[in-house]
Amino acid sequence: MLMTNRNITTCLSPALFEQGADEGKIIVIIDILRATSSICTAFANGASSIIPVAEVEEAREYKSKGYMVAAERDGYVLDFADFGNSPFNFTAEKVAGKTIVYSTTNGTGIINMLSGSCRIIIGSFLNITALCDWINTQDNDVLLFCAGWKNRFNIEDTVCAGAIASRLLAGDNYSTICDSTLCATDLWNLARDDIHGYIEKAAQRSRLRDKGLDDCIRFCLTPDFTDLVPFYREGILVGHVA
Amino acid sequence: MLMTNRNITTCLSPALFEQGADEGKIIVIIDILRATSSICTAFANGASSIIPVAEVEEAREYKSKGYMVAAERDGYVLDFADFGNSPFNFTAEKVAGKTIVYSTTNGTGIINMLSGSCRIIIGSFLNITALCDWINTQDNDVLLFCAGWKNRFNIEDTVCAGAIASRLLAGDNYSTICDSTLCATDLWNLARDDIHGYIEKAAQRSRLRDKGLDDCIRFCLTPDFTDLVPFYREGILVGHVA
Repeated sequence: MLMTNRNITTCLSPALFEQGADEGKIIVIIDILRATSSICTAFANGASSIIPVAEVEEAREYKSKGYMVAAERDGYVLDFADFGNSPFNFTAEKVAGKTIVYSTTNGTGIINMLSGSCRIIIGSFLNITALCDWINTQDNDVLLFCAGWKNRFNIEDTVCAGAIASRLLAGDNYSTICDSTLCATDLWNLARDDIHGYIEKAAQRSRLRDKGLDDCIRFCLTPDFTDLVPFYREGILVGHVA
Repeated sequence: MLMTNRNITTCLSPALFEQGADEGKIIVIIDILRATSSICTAFANGASSIIPVAEVEEAREYKSKGYMVAAERDGYVLDFADFGNSPFNFTAEKVAGKTIVYSTTNGTGIINMLSGSCRIIIGSFLNITALCDWINTQDNDVLLFCAGWKNRFNIEDTVCAGAIASRLLAGDNYSTICDSTLCATDLWNLARDDIHGYIEKAAQRSRLRDKGLDDCIRFCLTPDFTDLVPFYREGILVGHVA
């Protein structure tokens, strides 16, 4: 029998993560503009696995061994990489059946923070229903982990965390006493009728626009582009949690 | 002539503070349940100054020298102290004309984080109009610093930061591109018609209620109990910024 009062907590930025707070939990990493949206897209388009690496040199080394590499820093594609971090780059033509090396300082740093006892899955609007359905079949507390931007709070990941929390809280299994989760659900309720309009004010949206990288934003806000729930295990992301 | 596009940023928890982000700014410390509300009340009731100290032993030493000491840990009055941290303790009868030693790990820790170039003032609902009016006469960016609770995000300080930001943004002098400030103003807009009802869900409210210390919450949400803007200078809080 499943627990019926499992808890949801939310970490609004990696800087707010408390050591040990993840013990035994399901951790949903949320970095919707653009890392976790790109990862969901890659698997939806048939990628067999993704190797997240933190350092540029590590990514370069993989490239020299023949791997396909997606790598950017501050929105600019690294010269040796096959492509950057927009979800539009991860087409079936390019990624189907392949292992992709994905260089992302932020995401890899987060994974390294977490304990071995938690289970790490990838969340975005693109897989929100599948994600919530899968979580509801599990018997664990959930930590919604907003990747933020350079350790700062950001609106778009918080809104997505709020969307996930709202769905889980609407069922019988989950409750919360976490102020961050309550904040996230309130922002989601403000955003839900026009998410694109709501995140117009987000700083990351301006950053992407300034670099001409905002073409993917509407796509990143699309619910249920895929029913896959990417899962991290021993250094590798695979397409669907078992 | 004053700058007309000064910035507002918000730090939603001490854990999110970035070294150097305070250079030259006005820093508003917000810890409404209960530290900054109690400080405003103490000055409204005629206290001449407040010495914030971090350590219990330091507070005890001041007590042995004859100072009046307000000191709690986790909501419980320390045995040697004159009283605890509820604003209701800082009556005119007790504090008028006196220097009070106030032991608060959280607040003192925040002050120690900040650079010498910033100006630190104390914010709460109790002095919100005077605070905003004074800020508007200055020529500086503002950082709204939510004290949170044990380095966590909390709803009540965020709502107060949002109330302050909303007032400043309504004038011609301030703007913001800070996601945390936008989050705070959105929560304030949700809360403003019934702040007491809104923060019913806040974790700190439950903590205070569990200890029977929630009698002061309605008072802490009262706008404009005082027109003083307490100011920190060289280790001491004084009643009104010059």
